Amino acid sequence: MQTELSKKLGVEHAVFGFTPFPAVAAAITRAGGFGVLGAVRYTAPDDLARDLDWMQEHTDGLPYGLDVVMPAQKVEGVGEAEIEAMIPEGHRQFVRDTLAKHGVPELAEGEASGWRITGWMEQVARSQLDVAFGYPIKLLANALGSPPADVVRRAHDRGVLVAALAGSARHARHHAEAGIDVVVAQGYEAGGHTGEIATMVLVPEVVEAVGPLPVLAAGGIGSGEQIAAGLALGAQGVWLGSLWLTTTEAELHSRALTDKLLAAGSGDTVRSRALTGKPARQLRTEWTDAWDDPAGPGTLPMPLQGLLVAEAVSRIQKYEVKPLLGTPVGQIVGKMTAERGVQETFDELTRGFERAVDRINRIAGRDAR
Amino acid sequence: MQTELSKKLGVEHAVFGFTPFPAVAAAITRAGGFGVLGAVRYTAPDDLARDLDWMQEHTDGLPYGLDVVMPAQKVEGVGEAEIEAMIPEGHRQFVRDTLAKHGVPELAEGEASGWRITGWMEQVARSQLDVAFGYPIKLLANALGSPPADVVRRAHDRGVLVAALAGSARHARHHAEAGIDVVVAQGYEAGGHTGEIATMVLVPEVVEAVGPLPVLAAGGIGSGEQIAAGLALGAQGVWLGSLWLTTTEAELHSRALTDKLLAAGSGDTVRSRALTGKPARQLRTEWTDAWDDPAGPGTLPMPLQGLLVAEAVSRIQKYEVKPLLGTPVGQIVGKMTAERGVQETFDELTRGFERAVDRINRIAGRDAR
Repeated sequence: MQTELSKKLGVEHAVFGFTPFPAVAAAITRAGGFGVLGAVRYTAPDDLARDLDWMQEHTDGLPYGLDVVMPAQKVEGVGEAEIEAMIPEGHRQFVRDTLAKHGVPELAEGEASGWRITGWMEQVARSQLDVAFGYPIKLLANALGSPPADVVRRAHDRGVLVAALAGSARHARHHAEAGIDVVVAQGYEAGGHTGEIATMVLVPEVVEAVGPLPVLAAGGIGSGEQIAAGLALGAQGVWLGSLWLTTTEAELHSRALTDKLLAAGSGDTVRSRALTGKPARQLRTEWTDAWDDPAGPGTLPMPLQGLLVAEAVSRIQKYEVKPLLGTPVGQIVGKMTAERGVQETFDELTRGFERAVDRINRIAGRDAR
Repeated sequence: MQTELSKKLGVEHAVFGFTPFPAVAAAITRAGGFGVLGAVRYTAPDDLARDLDWMQEHTDGLPYGLDVVMPAQKVEGVGEAEIEAMIPEGHRQFVRDTLAKHGVPELAEGEASGWRITGWMEQVARSQLDVAFGYPIKLLANALGSPPADVVRRAHDRGVLVAALAGSARHARHHAEAGIDVVVAQGYEAGGHTGEIATMVLVPEVVEAVGPLPVLAAGGIGSGEQIAAGLALGAQGVWLGSLWLTTTEAELHSRALTDKLLAAGSGDTVRSRALTGKPARQLRTEWTDAWDDPAGPGTLPMPLQGLLVAEAVSRIQKYEVKPLLGTPVGQIVGKMTAERGVQETFDELTRGFERAVDRINRIAGRDAR
């Protein structure tokens, strides 16, 4: 599965796999795809360095990338404490009440919240970059808006391609003007932050808006047939995130959450502001229902919502409180019905792609070998 | 573009075009596709007979179909008057107020509302079928739920295939159990009634749920590349509705509405209950905003909402009141930027499909002719 972009990056298949887990990212790269490690959970630069060291040792010199969350606009002199102070007490009480209603235990004294919003803040993302540029990453992706100009320059100076996610053609044009190299067109059905335009419509619009810049199709892609569809729409590759959550290498550290993912149907996700303050697709739970309920206080804007719920989300995850337990995931969760290794999962993608190409050629009356 | 289903129907390309306009349906069939005439606007059986006579004369013996709206569950002894009586006065006042706010004139004395809900009622749909079975239609589609068992039998006795729209795999399985022959998997991005699952995810789910029954991909399809994507997902054909609205043969009878469609972007539609009481994608207007506004009275369930707004919609259309003027249409409206004939539109679809197949083969490293 070769495109101009996959050739440029030196990867066998134009399949980009986004994941917060180094073992998954490395396995995707070893399988012939392009593993992209999500950095948002790394608050300490040393932790990121440790995991990138591990990636280096486990990718056989094959290419991989890093995904950071960095806003293009810097808010000078505003730290976590100042932002915390902007959260209304009524919202804090709603968090306490909702947790109490479900009997969610407190964290132990002095125990840090595992899920932190700080990775979303520019100073943290920049310290991640200082670490990352010490490694031979081939692609730097930014999950939220165009990266700042100096970051783009710094990446280009090191021969690192810069990618950014877009949910609309307008958004994609903005990225192109900011000098980025690859647009990830992420449709409505995707897990995580999404707009309202479905992948089927979004990808060709973005290709037309920013061509000849390469576009990756994201959202609704979890099989070889869906990969073929994404490529038929004009993408130079596909970007998959959800599919890896139920691989055996994934480190969700929660049997209950894995079981929820395996049991969920395509209709069991919701695009909700509950997690970050911006619409992000995730498992629908009593937690998202509480935030989306018109009778409740509603969500706060980013980054307030993320700070507000950080500790609560950690507690829900730690104690595996099933009715509240969720994770960002796309509509393809309906097809994630068994735990399998990354290599097996990847092989099924390439086999499914070949089957889809065979099928399209039969329909088109082509004799293709 | 040949599949088992297209061969069975004797059509050159597995492209199904749904339209309320006989001239468009006939032109789709003549261009090598399968034209499907929407019957919901025909309240008088004679009008339908007249247009089917015209279709017969203008389709050169090539195949076409009919789309009706028929609920599987019959509500005995409930007519339009009984249903009208169920509409709250507050909702009627909201209609009057919203029209008055925009200065929408009254219809002339005795002038019938052009847009009628009665086509949605079973007795009307049955009288349409009595007419339709007198013509050599090859496919009978039902836009809302599975058709009643006796209708399926009647169609099968005449060698007519029965199709039904589905927005979920569960819905599709219900159709299969009801004995229908073709499932139209209609994704979130489609115009008209839709669910929340995007085409990219829905089509493979429905194929898996009802296979080997043939599935058509609907929603987000308005180019040859999107056709290739739909077929890659396992569909035996594609179902396009929105694209024909801006063809020169379309009889919208409203320059203002055509101009709105040509100007709209993919983000200018909304999935709203404003038109029928069930979620249907349409142009977002001040009319849909009024119904979707939490401060308003909200919509009524089907069929009450359709009856409630029928006259208002006719007045908005007749007087072309721009801020309120809309129509069901999918997210592909963003690509409908020029008026062209059906033949030219269709030829561009088949050319785009061939380009997409070429592209996929290059990516797959196939030598395909």
